[in-house]
Amino acid sequence: MADGVGGGQIKRPRYDPDRLLEVAVQQFIHRGYEATSMAQLAKAAGLGKSSIYHHFPSKEAILHRALSRALDALFAVLEEEGARLGPPAARLEHLLRRTVEVLVLELPYVTLLLRVRGNSKTELWALERRRHFDRRVAELVAATASTGVLRQGLDPGLGARLLLGMVNSISEWYRPGGPLSAADLARVAASVGLHGISGQRGPAPPGPPAR
Amino acid sequence: MADGVGGGQIKRPRYDPDRLLEVAVQQFIHRGYEATSMAQLAKAAGLGKSSIYHHFPSKEAILHRALSRALDALFAVLEEEGARLGPPAARLEHLLRRTVEVLVLELPYVTLLLRVRGNSKTELWALERRRHFDRRVAELVAATASTGVLRQGLDPGLGARLLLGMVNSISEWYRPGGPLSAADLARVAASVGLHGISGQRGPAPPGPPAR
Repeated sequence: MADGVGGGQIKRPRYDPDRLLEVAVQQFIHRGYEATSMAQLAKAAGLGKSSIYHHFPSKEAILHRALSRALDALFAVLEEEGARLGPPAARLEHLLRRTVEVLVLELPYVTLLLRVRGNSKTELWALERRRHFDRRVAELVAATASTGVLRQGLDPGLGARLLLGMVNSISEWYRPGGPLSAADLARVAASVGLHGISGQRGPAPPGPPAR
Repeated sequence: MADGVGGGQIKRPRYDPDRLLEVAVQQFIHRGYEATSMAQLAKAAGLGKSSIYHHFPSKEAILHRALSRALDALFAVLEEEGARLGPPAARLEHLLRRTVEVLVLELPYVTLLLRVRGNSKTELWALERRRHFDRRVAELVAATASTGVLRQGLDPGLGARLLLGMVNSISEWYRPGGPLSAADLARVAASVGLHGISGQRGPAPPGPPAR
């Protein structure tokens, strides 16, 4: 838990906001945001409550910072060239694959984002940004339909929900350091997802890029 | 909230354990189990705390009953003929399709089950039963590999996780009463999932049964 404490008890770890954020997100995921008090955060971080308030005015401000980190990373993917240029199916493959990579790279922050239910202004704000991201995915699925790649009769909105559900569920079980690299997992998940929503006899979705 | 109260305040609603369970599960989903007190449950149910204790000895007993309901419904699917007999891919299609139908039919209970993190004996028990169910799905995915249906190079365990992730994520957004029936959703989701894990040039997965 207190990685930064080291072997002895002589010095308190020096906290920067990022390290405090990391500990707080662990606690939020473990106990639930609502059920975590600032006193518990302080204890987990090995800090006094006043030290936490030095960095963040409130528990909700910590949540906001953590959710921003996940959302900013996801929205950055939308700006990548691979998500903006080329045929819709290739852009969708890029978007799904990079979303999985971001999920793995920012695992605790994205996990927290995916558990947000809208119980505060900050949660409602995060849900609205998530919906915005999901809409961009849905638009891309709809665009693949217009090029004949989508399987017949599949509603693009439903296709997008199923794809995002599959991708997001990776946060429930993936643990870094296992045999499966983030890049390999991302390629497989994007390919399975795209193949799933593609026409059974239509053109195959783009394969993973050669490396 | 208090559906059973009706227009007036003359009579308290008559509670049976199932109705109390329903209200409790709503609260657990809305606030989180940890963050919900027996006092809050009593208030939401329009009952005194002692009336709740009349039905359930503890909050954890309520959780146990709710999770049992979801788990029993899921395990019953494994016993259905369609999940036991026939080629592996057809059994897997049955299992996925019926899992979605159970998820929709028992939506609050399955949603609660999917949010369990193992913070109590009851949660650990539920997680273990979920793992058992997931293993049965993974075995069936592995069996489809042995018949050459699974796409080349896809680890059956990963395939099962992606399928289950897609199916389970439906609990995040599906609301009964919309334009999409449970049966249609279940057919589409099972078909998209199976097609996704199938070989791109292998035999097509079985379609939905004709009705």
